[in-house]
Amino acid sequence: MTDATITDIPAYMTDLGHRARAASRQLARASTAAKNHALLAIAAQLEQERAALTAANQQDLAAGAAKGLDAALLDRLELTASRIDAMIEGVRQVATLPDPVGAITDLNYRPSGIQVGRMRVPLGVVGIIYESRPNVTADAAALCLKSGNATVLRGGSEAFASNQAIARCIQAGLVAAGLPEDGVQVVATTDRAAVGAMVAMPEAIDVIIPRGGKSLIERISREARVPVIKHLDGICHVYIDAHADLDKAYAIAINAKTQRYGTCNTMETLLVDAPVAAAILPRLAAAYRDKGVELRGCPQTCALIAEAVPATDADWDSEYLAPILSIRVVAGLEAAMEHIARHGSAHTDAIVTEDYARARRFLREVDSSSVMVNASTRFADGFEYGLGAEIGISTDKFHARGPVGLEGLTSVKFVVLGDGEVRG
Amino acid sequence: MTDATITDIPAYMTDLGHRARAASRQLARASTAAKNHALLAIAAQLEQERAALTAANQQDLAAGAAKGLDAALLDRLELTASRIDAMIEGVRQVATLPDPVGAITDLNYRPSGIQVGRMRVPLGVVGIIYESRPNVTADAAALCLKSGNATVLRGGSEAFASNQAIARCIQAGLVAAGLPEDGVQVVATTDRAAVGAMVAMPEAIDVIIPRGGKSLIERISREARVPVIKHLDGICHVYIDAHADLDKAYAIAINAKTQRYGTCNTMETLLVDAPVAAAILPRLAAAYRDKGVELRGCPQTCALIAEAVPATDADWDSEYLAPILSIRVVAGLEAAMEHIARHGSAHTDAIVTEDYARARRFLREVDSSSVMVNASTRFADGFEYGLGAEIGISTDKFHARGPVGLEGLTSVKFVVLGDGEVRG
Repeated sequence: MTDATITDIPAYMTDLGHRARAASRQLARASTAAKNHALLAIAAQLEQERAALTAANQQDLAAGAAKGLDAALLDRLELTASRIDAMIEGVRQVATLPDPVGAITDLNYRPSGIQVGRMRVPLGVVGIIYESRPNVTADAAALCLKSGNATVLRGGSEAFASNQAIARCIQAGLVAAGLPEDGVQVVATTDRAAVGAMVAMPEAIDVIIPRGGKSLIERISREARVPVIKHLDGICHVYIDAHADLDKAYAIAINAKTQRYGTCNTMETLLVDAPVAAAILPRLAAAYRDKGVELRGCPQTCALIAEAVPATDADWDSEYLAPILSIRVVAGLEAAMEHIARHGSAHTDAIVTEDYARARRFLREVDSSSVMVNASTRFADGFEYGLGAEIGISTDKFHARGPVGLEGLTSVKFVVLGDGEVRG
Repeated sequence: MTDATITDIPAYMTDLGHRARAASRQLARASTAAKNHALLAIAAQLEQERAALTAANQQDLAAGAAKGLDAALLDRLELTASRIDAMIEGVRQVATLPDPVGAITDLNYRPSGIQVGRMRVPLGVVGIIYESRPNVTADAAALCLKSGNATVLRGGSEAFASNQAIARCIQAGLVAAGLPEDGVQVVATTDRAAVGAMVAMPEAIDVIIPRGGKSLIERISREARVPVIKHLDGICHVYIDAHADLDKAYAIAINAKTQRYGTCNTMETLLVDAPVAAAILPRLAAAYRDKGVELRGCPQTCALIAEAVPATDADWDSEYLAPILSIRVVAGLEAAMEHIARHGSAHTDAIVTEDYARARRFLREVDSSSVMVNASTRFADGFEYGLGAEIGISTDKFHARGPVGLEGLTSVKFVVLGDGEVRG
């Protein structure tokens, strides 16, 4: 499937990196109009090339089936007509988002007479390493382009033909808008050495965003010689406080677990304050039973819920991504926060309470990328937060934290306006 | 000089890291009042222990002299009475700065009914690795404390006794304010293995800030397994445009080069637009001559300035940190920006012009941490920018860029306030 003309991977990647760097300079100064023009041209091109996209995807699907890929992987790989629609619509929506680049904030006069502010600027070249979903190619390219960055994309080998077909549409769109074709490059080889090269080219790539399973992300974090915006575990908690409104608690605990099972912001552990355990747990257990959720509990939980099985120590550290929930009865807010600090993954944690002081303490003291009061953890999402779009969710603290939108793909520089001032 | 009881460096550093992590949780939720109380208590303690500080410093100076350290190094090492004054005053000033921690911004309602904002939070544990100046111990500890971080400090071996004496004052101040003594720890060994351990403890240390020469910073960047806020070269440019006010240009070019020679924001290369070269260069050359600045120029410069020697290619890439200036006559704004992109270090670059469009292009297109119009590069400084203080200047783009104050020592998390909302 690889482009057979690429035999010298280091030389190929070096050249690709040089071209990305050169293109990034042009994209950094591209006007908002030119970037939006390119996005709409990319969308039009994807629309026009539907047949070619589907044919390329069929080729990937046939190769995947022949290789014995499992059904779930083949499903993720498939570009159905509605997925192509969604991909095109996503690119169009990015065109409607405000352009973050060049915005100047806090432009204040200083006693010396200079005026100092901060201008938002692109990061430069963003490398995205992802797995089987080919729609990431268009989504990620659109966000990087709008934020003025050049992009190097390296998708999964099983989606090679689909990604190349999408890349051709993107590059045609860039050219139509007078922007450099090299602004978005899709690595044209499935050789894994290309990934090793990508994460170790600080002169060419400024940040790597891996999107995929934990093993991919861990490997990239280990090998990377450039910053990585990464998402590791999502072990999210809901804590039902003694002062909770139990109807809200019920609605949130059901939604946080069962609205979707496989997402990173799904609740994996429910913590319940001892005074309300008997009032809420049997009611919740009935609803979870109806939805087929397996319950694993601490001894107090098991005493209140007949069908709960005893939780092991490993349960408190597990991201199930499945209809399984661990439940622990705790002795108040302190114990709940201690459990979250010890077992959580600093992703998303919520308290349900009507108590002002406890809500305020939870918000301040729980060190997670999203901290919520009386809301479902499922809201931790770039669209729900109003970021317009999301390139991923960061579980790091450095640079970007939580859902990462256009702003997370930028940095700021200081701008100084003077009238001939010198330093005394 | 090392504490002789420390024989097992990995075990010592692991323990120190554990204690830093535990202390960081307490400092993250410490009130503004408690942190300010600690800062004032540290200042009082430093005041009270002047004699002990001076004695410890004398011990370092004697050992340094015996080891044959050069005069410049011994000077940097010395804690004179006025330097102790400045150190104490610096700690007191940090107490007067606004507390960034817990501030919530952009708390907006979303269509779902949830209200989403961002709360500023400490990074966690900050590791500082620095060289001979012992005052860094108090400066860095104060900034990290105010921003709610625990700190692990590793100073130069030649300042060991001085740093330990300062550390005792800091820890006494923390205890006086009811904050954990382990909130600021100074590594009590000069074994270089401690540095290797510090930069590779992601479980204990969240970010490393090296302060020192280029070789220290390069070594740490290479070895680090945690993010590094680093400062590499400061190859700063002033570009005098054809549309410059030549009096402003003169003042800025003299100040940017000669106000101080050894600082990172000192101009190293002067670029002059060809149409004004004959009008400004001889006048500047006379002033530089009076100040003893050696001039190295391109052929056009040498034709205009008799005493200029020809610049070599290496000059354009040199950070002299000395009374040496390279000068190049360029053909307009594009050529100037091209020179800066190619030879600059993305630190601080200035244009002198009265032309609106050229000023605006330079601000947008020059990709440096500080970009200036009609002001001296020497203003690139946390105090001059109004950050209140500065832990360093970052030449990275990721997380923090340019002068880094309290805000650069923090991150943000999302906070979500709801009333029982669930995701549909």
